[in-house]
Amino acid sequence: MDSRIMHQLTYGLFVLSAAENGKDNGCIINTVTQVSAAPAHVTISVCKQNYTHDMIARTGRFNVAILDITAPFDLFQRFGFQSGRDADKFAGVETIRTANGILIPTEHVNAWFSGKVLQAWELGSHSLFLADIEGGEIMSGKEPATYAFYHKNIKPRPQAGKRKGWRCKICGYVYEGEELPPDYVCPLCKHGASDFERIE
Amino acid sequence: MDSRIMHQLTYGLFVLSAAENGKDNGCIINTVTQVSAAPAHVTISVCKQNYTHDMIARTGRFNVAILDITAPFDLFQRFGFQSGRDADKFAGVETIRTANGILIPTEHVNAWFSGKVLQAWELGSHSLFLADIEGGEIMSGKEPATYAFYHKNIKPRPQAGKRKGWRCKICGYVYEGEELPPDYVCPLCKHGASDFERIE
Repeated sequence: MDSRIMHQLTYGLFVLSAAENGKDNGCIINTVTQVSAAPAHVTISVCKQNYTHDMIARTGRFNVAILDITAPFDLFQRFGFQSGRDADKFAGVETIRTANGILIPTEHVNAWFSGKVLQAWELGSHSLFLADIEGGEIMSGKEPATYAFYHKNIKPRPQAGKRKGWRCKICGYVYEGEELPPDYVCPLCKHGASDFERIE
Repeated sequence: MDSRIMHQLTYGLFVLSAAENGKDNGCIINTVTQVSAAPAHVTISVCKQNYTHDMIARTGRFNVAILDITAPFDLFQRFGFQSGRDADKFAGVETIRTANGILIPTEHVNAWFSGKVLQAWELGSHSLFLADIEGGEIMSGKEPATYAFYHKNIKPRPQAGKRKGWRCKICGYVYEGEELPPDYVCPLCKHGASDFERIE
């Protein structure tokens, strides 16, 4: 199948956060969907390589901060391109700790809500969590950022240069080499080989 | 909780179609998400009031057509504001019948793919279907329509007029009356009372 098809699906952009044993963490996801109206439930899909994934799997609690179109690239670098296993992603970030004990960033955030996991399904690379909504708040109320908006307006343009190899279309990381191994995973954003493009 | 929070989530717009016993049908949904990468799976959430829902629950097969920004309002009226129980929604529509025996519209469609249901969960008002992807194709490749784009650019503006009561924010239907019953369901688009706004 033409892999571009799945790239036409529309997503928002979110900081997904969790807390466990006094540690705060968060990551970027684009898969938050309200899946039922009565009762109101959401699903989130989270890559198992994320430390935030493991914290949510163990604690059953999370926050979702809906990013707005003012979100700068360094917010995506902070929450998306490093691991909470090695870094304190919330260091220096303005936050609120919500009733469930979990942080949310407060800048560039349209609105946030808290989720309580009802069920989790393992789907290979990702887990799908079905959750109840436990409250939330409108913040900036500015237009939500879409994944397409991120690619068009937030992510820096690739620099013309002499580097040859394969560039990650998600975060811009360059793998220098003739052949990209099919099981290659981007060391920055953890996307797979199918998200790399050849650069000459 | 402030119900506007959930309205900040970003969605695309899709014609979801199915076929059963020689009958073709489809409806509009906005909840198609790729939830895992390896293997590639999608979820769709479908309101149980839709006839298409029942056809998918029984047959386990569906198509998703990703609508592009050229989609006109009458396409949403055709697939979204009437029931396939009463109408042949595909009558007069240019279509392709794909390998799974299900139709897709071919105009105003960015791309389509076929899904095979792996699991279904009943969530009150909606069912959540987890599915394998069974092929698909890029069509117009034009920019996908978002739900926000629909509200801003496709849906006709409400006419200033003398009608008082409650207006469905989704399709514009007007309920004439002082009090909207809390369990009221829009007769056109099947959205609930929380999607109505007071008009004076």
